[in-house]
Amino acid sequence: MIYSLEDFLAHAIAMEDESAERYLELADMMEAHNNLDVSKVFRDMNHYSQLHRDSIMERASGINLPKLKSWEFRWTSPPEVGDEDGFDYMMEPFNALEYARGNEVRAMFFYQGVANSAEEGSEIKELATEFAEEEKEHTEALDKWMGITPRP
Amino acid sequence: MIYSLEDFLAHAIAMEDESAERYLELADMMEAHNNLDVSKVFRDMNHYSQLHRDSIMERASGINLPKLKSWEFRWTSPPEVGDEDGFDYMMEPFNALEYARGNEVRAMFFYQGVANSAEEGSEIKELATEFAEEEKEHTEALDKWMGITPRP
Repeated sequence: MIYSLEDFLAHAIAMEDESAERYLELADMMEAHNNLDVSKVFRDMNHYSQLHRDSIMERASGINLPKLKSWEFRWTSPPEVGDEDGFDYMMEPFNALEYARGNEVRAMFFYQGVANSAEEGSEIKELATEFAEEEKEHTEALDKWMGITPRP
Repeated sequence: MIYSLEDFLAHAIAMEDESAERYLELADMMEAHNNLDVSKVFRDMNHYSQLHRDSIMERASGINLPKLKSWEFRWTSPPEVGDEDGFDYMMEPFNALEYARGNEVRAMFFYQGVANSAEEGSEIKELATEFAEEEKEHTEALDKWMGITPRP
């Protein structure tokens, strides 16, 4: 699938905006459970996602962006939501980190896939490569935290 | 997990609202691919979800509802989204029906779980049982359509 610049920017903005919102929820959740270290990780992630979204929006100003379907940019749900026992999977910092990681990896693959199929030397290829690298760094930061967070 | 009436109503409203939005997306998508039969199924589902949401909102009027986390009510993503090949899984009516079905089943389990743990004779038990039954009917309607829709 070859993305047009409009399509690519629309995806990137929606994905960063979604990340920012989800990280804020995760930060609030960790704070409610008194895990201030992990809450701070998520607040930082929220901040970076917002900055990233804003800088992409600036690049996109004046461009008419397509409307996307929710499944093209939304985070996936954590696995245990909706389970009959009502076990609250997301209360555990390790699970919240793992949930975020899964979605960062998904975003990384998306950007990498766009980069791979974009024309050599195009702006999309440059941007998508750069964005994939950023998601990789987020993934690594979450890995680091998962390494020092007790498994539930 | 025992739900308060506020919590339960907030979940039900958010879930029905989410369903209505997703069904509209699915209907538009099917229409764009010229599948008017399946598009009509999804438009009907959108309509029922809206009616259901509105009637629950009426029941909840005057009650101060809690704010939910997105993963407590959002639909899960279709499995192949974000795949590197850029294959558009959701273009196929069968896959779109299957995606909707997965989320109906999830909602059915949620309502059934609430009903099971609610106090005998309580309003929550009555509502949750009724809502679980509705989701079961939606699941069966989608099954029927999946039975007559070619597998991709």
